[in-house]
Amino acid sequence: MVGLIGGAKRLRPPIVTLLTDFGLKDPYVAEMKAVILSICPEARIVDVSHMVKKFDVRMGAFILAQAAPYFPAGTVHVAVVDPGVGTERRPIIVEAKRSFYVGPDNGVLMLSAKREGILHIYEIKNRKYMLQKISRTFHGRDVFSPSAAHLALGVPPSLFGPEVSDPVVPEFAEPRVSGRKVLGEVVHVDDFGNLVTNISLENLLEVGIEEGGSLRVEIGGRKLDLRLCTAYGEAAPGEVLTLIGGTGFLEVSVNMGNASQTLGCGVGEPVRITHPGKAGL
Amino acid sequence: MVGLIGGAKRLRPPIVTLLTDFGLKDPYVAEMKAVILSICPEARIVDVSHMVKKFDVRMGAFILAQAAPYFPAGTVHVAVVDPGVGTERRPIIVEAKRSFYVGPDNGVLMLSAKREGILHIYEIKNRKYMLQKISRTFHGRDVFSPSAAHLALGVPPSLFGPEVSDPVVPEFAEPRVSGRKVLGEVVHVDDFGNLVTNISLENLLEVGIEEGGSLRVEIGGRKLDLRLCTAYGEAAPGEVLTLIGGTGFLEVSVNMGNASQTLGCGVGEPVRITHPGKAGL
Amino acid sequence: MVGLIGGAKRLRPPIVTLLTDFGLKDPYVAEMKAVILSICPEARIVDVSHMVKKFDVRMGAFILAQAAPYFPAGTVHVAVVDPGVGTERRPIIVEAKRSFYVGPDNGVLMLSAKREGILHIYEIKNRKYMLQKISRTFHGRDVFSPSAAHLALGVPPSLFGPEVSDPVVPEFAEPRVSGRKVLGEVVHVDDFGNLVTNISLENLLEVGIEEGGSLRVEIGGRKLDLRLCTAYGEAAPGEVLTLIGGTGFLEVSVNMGNASQTLGCGVGEPVRITHPGKAGL
Repeated sequence: MVGLIGGAKRLRPPIVTLLTDFGLKDPYVAEMKAVILSICPEARIVDVSHMVKKFDVRMGAFILAQAAPYFPAGTVHVAVVDPGVGTERRPIIVEAKRSFYVGPDNGVLMLSAKREGILHIYEIKNRKYMLQKISRTFHGRDVFSPSAAHLALGVPPSLFGPEVSDPVVPEFAEPRVSGRKVLGEVVHVDDFGNLVTNISLENLLEVGIEEGGSLRVEIGGRKLDLRLCTAYGEAAPGEVLTLIGGTGFLEVSVNMGNASQTLGCGVGEPVRITHPGKAGL
Repeated sequence: MVGLIGGAKRLRPPIVTLLTDFGLKDPYVAEMKAVILSICPEARIVDVSHMVKKFDVRMGAFILAQAAPYFPAGTVHVAVVDPGVGTERRPIIVEAKRSFYVGPDNGVLMLSAKREGILHIYEIKNRKYMLQKISRTFHGRDVFSPSAAHLALGVPPSLFGPEVSDPVVPEFAEPRVSGRKVLGEVVHVDDFGNLVTNISLENLLEVGIEEGGSLRVEIGGRKLDLRLCTAYGEAAPGEVLTLIGGTGFLEVSVNMGNASQTLGCGVGEPVRITHPGKAGL
Repeated sequence: MVGLIGGAKRLRPPIVTLLTDFGLKDPYVAEMKAVILSICPEARIVDVSHMVKKFDVRMGAFILAQAAPYFPAGTVHVAVVDPGVGTERRPIIVEAKRSFYVGPDNGVLMLSAKREGILHIYEIKNRKYMLQKISRTFHGRDVFSPSAAHLALGVPPSLFGPEVSDPVVPEFAEPRVSGRKVLGEVVHVDDFGNLVTNISLENLLEVGIEEGGSLRVEIGGRKLDLRLCTAYGEAAPGEVLTLIGGTGFLEVSVNMGNASQTLGCGVGEPVRITHPGKAGL
C-alpha cells in the first residue's frame, strides 16, 4: 500500500469497480458495464456493492473505503450514490496514491481517497470522454462509466478537466478518547447484524483495554459487561460479544445471531466504552 | 448503432449477457455461467438482471431492451423468463442488426430485437450445440447457455436449426396522442420507485409540452400539476416531479423518495398527460 | 466428468468460484475478489451464491454440489459458510478428481467433493499463501481467497500444509426405499418455491413409478395424488405437480406458482412417496 511517486500505476488488465445504490433489479448496472466494455474491452469489472441504501452517501463511502485497500494499485473505483445528479454538483476524478476514484463530488469518494492520500482532483468536463448523449439523470452511465473506462485505458486524469481545490468532504464522526472512556458510534450494520463502530483497537489500548480482556459497552440504553473476543465462536451461540472485526474496528456482535436485532440498534447509535464495573466478568 | 450488412459482427473477446427470473440464491445462474465458460472460456459474462419478477416475460423484455443498446455490436444476449420450458414453445436465436438473442420464443427477446431490426430467427434444434443431457425444466442451462457459447465462438446462427417465420411477438402498449392529450401507462417501476411510462419526449412535444415547462398528470385517481424537470434535484426533497429519465421515457418520480409508494401506483397504471389547468404551476 | 489420474488439471484461464452467506450489501465479497485478482490477475471469478442462509452449512454444501459439476475440470471452488471462523476448525483444501475446494473444515466442501471423488485433503498452514495480516473473523478474505488464488496460479495443494485424514463430513439424509414406498425429505426450497427433495428418479423406478405416470405424495400432513410430469407446463397454472427437476431430484412444484407457500413446507419436511390410491388420477 505504498504510494507511488507520480500517481497510481496502470494495471494490466485494468480493474474497474462499481458501487451504487441502484439495487439489482433494473438494467442500470448492466448499462454501466456495457459502456465500460465498449470503450475498454479488457477491463475486469468487479461489483463492490449495489445495495447501498438509496441516497446514503456515507454508507457508500464507508463500504468503498473498506474494500478499496484490498484491490491492486491502479484500480479505478466508480461510486454512484448521487442524489444531486444533473444539478450543480460536479463530476470528479480523484487521483490518489494507489487508485483512481470516479463519481460525484458529494463525498462518496473522499473517505477512501483520503485514507490512501489524495494527489489531485479533476472535474470531468471533457466531452470526449463521455457518451455522446448525456442524460441529466444517469451520469453513472453517461459520464462516470466512460470516464472510468478511458482512465482504465491509460488516459491521464489531467485531460478530463480542470483541477478542483474545494471538494466536498463528508464529516465522519471520529471517536473521542478521554481519561478512561471511549465515545464512538455505530457506523455500519452489516448483513449479519454486526454493529460496526468507528472505534479502533488503538483507541481501546489508549484506555487500557486489550483483546482477550473485558470491557463495558453502553449502547441503546443498556450497560453490558462483555469480553473483547478474538473470534465470534469464543462466545456461546446467542451471546453478545465484542471483537475487532475484519474491518479493523470494534464490532458488537452476537455469536450465530444478529446484534442489530438483539439490541435494537442501528447506524448512528452512540457507543460508550469503559472498563467493566465490579459486576463485570 | 448502425446495422451491419450481413448481420452482427463478432466481438473479441465475446460478451454474453444473462437475464433471468431465477433470483440470486440458487445455483442456477452459476450453472449457466459454468456451461458457457466450459465451451467458450474467453467469454465475458455480464449479468443484466436475475431479479425479473417470476414468469414476467414483459418485465424481462423491458429490462433487456433498455440495456442492450449500450453493449457493443456482436454481443450475445441470453434471456430466460420461461414459464413454458419443456412444452412446445420453441427455443430460438434471433439474429438482429447489432446483436444475437437466445431464449424461448415467448416474446422476451423480441422487444429489444425489433428495436434494432431483425435479420433472421432460427429454431435451436441442432443437438450438437446443446448439453448432452437435456432436462425438460432447465433449458437455460442445457440449451440456451451452450447455444450462446457456440454463437460467441463464431458458429453461424443458421447452423442451429430451421428458420422461424412466426415468432411470438408480445403486445406492448403504445401511447396514444390525440389532440392535446397523451394516454399511456406505467411499464416499469424501478428500484427507486420511479414510475417509468411508455410516453416519450416526442409524444409530449406533439402536444406542445416541453422540458422545463409544466404538465398535468392524471394517475392513480389524482390530478397533479407538475413540472417537467430535467433533473430530480430540481424539485424539493419529497416533491413529486416528472422528467425524461435515463430510459428515454417520461417518469413520474419523487425527489429523494419513492413515487410508487407515494402515489400507490404500479405497472399497468394508466397515465393521462394534458396541459396544466388554471390552478397549475 | 471423468477423473484425471494424478488430480485435477489446471485451467487456463483459471476459474475461481465463490459461495458465501455474506449477502450482497457489504464489501466482504469484493474484498475476496480483490485479494484473488491481486495474486492471480487472470482468474475468472464466478459467483455461485452469496445468499446462503447465514451459518447454514448444509444449504451451502447443497448449492455448491449442484453447481460444481457444470464447471470445467480444474476449477477452484471457495466456500465460506463459516460460523467457527477463528476457532479450532481447520482451513482446508480438498483436491478432488475434477476440482479443488477451499474453505473451512466444517462439511461445506465435502458433499460436492465426495461426489466427484476425493484424492487428498490438506490443512492450510503455510503463511506464505495467506495475507500478511490475518484477522480472526474473516478467513474468507485473509486465508481462503489467497490460497485459492495461489492454487489457480498452479501451486501444488500439498505445499499448503499437512494432509488431513479426519475431515468433518456432514450427514445428509439419504432416502429410504422399502417395499413400495420411498421416504425422503425436502433438502432445498429454491427461489421459485420448488420443494427439492433428496429422492432420485432411480429411487422412484425401484418402486415402479415412472415419468409420465402418477404417484401419491404425503407431505406437510396432506396426501396428494399427483402426476410425475416432465415439464412444469404439463400442469395447469396453480396446479401442484411433481417432476424430476434440473437438479436431478424429485421436486414438488406448482406450475406458475410457489409450492413452498401453497403447501406451507420448507427444508427438512418429510416426504413419503407411494403409488396413488384408488382415488388417484
